[in-house]
Amino acid sequence: MERIKPRTLSGFMELLPEKQARLERMMSVLRDTYSLYGFAPLDTPAIEDAQILLAKGGGETEKQIYRFQKGDSDLALRFDLTVPLAKYVALHYNELAFPFRRYQISKVYRGERAQRGRFREFYQADIDIIGDGKLDVLNEAEIPAIIYRVFRGFGLKRFQIRVNNRKILSGFYAMLGLTEQSGDIMRTVDKLEKIGPEKVRNILCTDCGLSDEQAQEILSFIAITGSNEQVLQALQGYAGRNELFDQGLQELRQVTDNLAAFGVPEENFAVDLTIARGLDYYTGTVYETTLLDHPQIGSVCSGGRYDNLAGYYIDKELPGVGISIGLTRLFYVLDEQGLLNPALPAAPADALVLPMTEDPAPAIALAEQLRQAGVRVQLYAEKKKFKQKMSYADKLKVPYAVLLGEDEIAAGQCSVKNMVTGEQVTLAPDAAAKFILDGLAEQNGPIILE
Amino acid sequence: MERIKPRTLSGFMELLPEKQARLERMMSVLRDTYSLYGFAPLDTPAIEDAQILLAKGGGETEKQIYRFQKGDSDLALRFDLTVPLAKYVALHYNELAFPFRRYQISKVYRGERAQRGRFREFYQADIDIIGDGKLDVLNEAEIPAIIYRVFRGFGLKRFQIRVNNRKILSGFYAMLGLTEQSGDIMRTVDKLEKIGPEKVRNILCTDCGLSDEQAQEILSFIAITGSNEQVLQALQGYAGRNELFDQGLQELRQVTDNLAAFGVPEENFAVDLTIARGLDYYTGTVYETTLLDHPQIGSVCSGGRYDNLAGYYIDKELPGVGISIGLTRLFYVLDEQGLLNPALPAAPADALVLPMTEDPAPAIALAEQLRQAGVRVQLYAEKKKFKQKMSYADKLKVPYAVLLGEDEIAAGQCSVKNMVTGEQVTLAPDAAAKFILDGLAEQNGPIILE
Repeated sequence: MERIKPRTLSGFMELLPEKQARLERMMSVLRDTYSLYGFAPLDTPAIEDAQILLAKGGGETEKQIYRFQKGDSDLALRFDLTVPLAKYVALHYNELAFPFRRYQISKVYRGERAQRGRFREFYQADIDIIGDGKLDVLNEAEIPAIIYRVFRGFGLKRFQIRVNNRKILSGFYAMLGLTEQSGDIMRTVDKLEKIGPEKVRNILCTDCGLSDEQAQEILSFIAITGSNEQVLQALQGYAGRNELFDQGLQELRQVTDNLAAFGVPEENFAVDLTIARGLDYYTGTVYETTLLDHPQIGSVCSGGRYDNLAGYYIDKELPGVGISIGLTRLFYVLDEQGLLNPALPAAPADALVLPMTEDPAPAIALAEQLRQAGVRVQLYAEKKKFKQKMSYADKLKVPYAVLLGEDEIAAGQCSVKNMVTGEQVTLAPDAAAKFILDGLAEQNGPIILE
Repeated sequence: MERIKPRTLSGFMELLPEKQARLERMMSVLRDTYSLYGFAPLDTPAIEDAQILLAKGGGETEKQIYRFQKGDSDLALRFDLTVPLAKYVALHYNELAFPFRRYQISKVYRGERAQRGRFREFYQADIDIIGDGKLDVLNEAEIPAIIYRVFRGFGLKRFQIRVNNRKILSGFYAMLGLTEQSGDIMRTVDKLEKIGPEKVRNILCTDCGLSDEQAQEILSFIAITGSNEQVLQALQGYAGRNELFDQGLQELRQVTDNLAAFGVPEENFAVDLTIARGLDYYTGTVYETTLLDHPQIGSVCSGGRYDNLAGYYIDKELPGVGISIGLTRLFYVLDEQGLLNPALPAAPADALVLPMTEDPAPAIALAEQLRQAGVRVQLYAEKKKFKQKMSYADKLKVPYAVLLGEDEIAAGQCSVKNMVTGEQVTLAPDAAAKFILDGLAEQNGPIILE
């Protein structure tokens, strides 16, 4: 037979079972947390009409998109989950209840130049809350709570949700008479952490055409730091000079005031005036999230408030607020830095049942009994020597092996071996299930290490 | 702004939230059941090198595949989950523990002619057990147990797992001197249920070139029915004339003998000699599953034993056994026939918390408390009149609304309204959470009706 060398395309993540299990745990935390906050799961097609996906058009998107013909159809793979959401909401506008809250954890496709840590197929895990005409700022206040629960769910404590409000920035630039340039300025300020204040000053003066005083005003403004209350106090000093600014400040207060009720500790949250988010469509609260001990990873969860989700498709004002987690990249970086907790079991089963008798029926029945109790059981069906069976258990890294020989069967018991400690006990099936589940509960720990 | 009319491509399923919730429940049963039997979740890329996907080549596949260029690459979307599995196992052969058990619930793509109930993007939910060189028949015996748990998990009782063994068929044809024609014969016999015995006889005589006696022998053989034991007894009458036949009969016995230990009731299982499965690559046990009260749906879960998973990619004998559920089509048909239990809650939240005071903090804290107890809570953040708030609750079909006004806050309580019965009780938050979770448990029922 002529053979073709198997390979997986470069830029496409394909994990071995153990790593896949760790990724699944993260997905499971995301699904559970998003569900707990009343978001509906959404699943849109990976392929859409290219004209619809590219309604906004332009730039990098058009270059990176996977676009192809099939018959007469001009098709493309989705490059994010926001455009499909906009299409969905516009298309099903009359059938949805607003505010419409949805989560989607799906793969998106971008034909970027292949390089280490860049993926052409990657998961995004998004939530959005879409209003019909209006959307209360309280929704913006709820987002940090959800981010907090997600990262606590991953097992992390040392992370910070950083928040700003675009109205504060726009209002401030208006005070300086820089409304026209505010887009350019915000994109520049957004780079502060990467390139430092002096380079920001240079770009502001050279490329954006600001005076030295204007650049200084901006640098002083974004240098405002301290506790949330200190930052809000400092901002209060600018109040009364611009309506948009005052509105933004009020919104920011509403977000920070409700943090305690939402159960978000002060140390996991910071008002940060340097955050603008590059995208032009954010209009209110904006979010970034950083791992405090791993700042080089950058923001692991970002988003914000926008005023016009689906203007390309429908003549309705649809404001919203949303966040996105680039799951594939996050997973890749965590793995690369050895931050995926290796102590957490990642085997496909909790227990491997090993029949030690000619007739497999007692082992089969035992496996079913353990499953009924909630233990994930793999039945080892091959007729191999004991040593080979145990070697398979080792290779699988299964936490428990359950041995069933003539003696155990006669006594109505089974032998449960802890594959880490080597400890072995003989128990009745019910007690064995409890022993295994209790042991697993003890081994439970954070998915991500700090 | 110039607008583009939003649409979803024909042949692509995109569900409203309520239906999506029902599909998610089915997926969740599949994930949980597959996991309980020790299968590892696998997630391969949707895009692969076209040459690799088409290694086997030929026929419908080549016409239906979505294939396109990006840069210099000849790419294609997967059209099933078996070819990517073969590639994966060949590529990672040295890193996997065998038997390798994986499940994959993913979308696949086939550019078929669009027609009602046919999808171009659809979920398959597959499991496979792959051996290295050998794979014990006990694995084939385990598959019906997994099918049984899946469909019981969907809430069904009236379904039948129908099983045959290709070796019995091949051996039988060899007895008649029809080995050469056995492929054609099996494909013909596979149509028995659709076209009836007379048309099968015609095709056998005319197209396959069988004599009247040979055709009669085959029709008599596949007419063998009765209890599993009766069918096995009848088959015993053919024993001793062909080695392959005898081996198949022995395998079939091993599958049926262990059903009781696996907990599969006799009424959910039938040996059925008419089942051959069209595909040439099955070599042992084959499976089909039908809903007894809805035979027109056809087989909802099929598969079998094969001997050579990845011969196109690697010089290793990799036998396996697997089944596949065409989830999207199954869901579509069930929905069309009104078989998705409408009584089962499908709202994105269990409870909608409605703040009735100016300060939202008490309602926020209450929502968090309910979530801590495991209730999926949506916080209604809009400043609307009471009637509008309740109308949103109705539209969302949320099972419970939780009202929090000044009186409740003062008393440390909240009012919980059952949105179906209209019944309202005032309780402390902990008791409210328990009340809601108990109520939901009562509303629990089958996902699919019979």
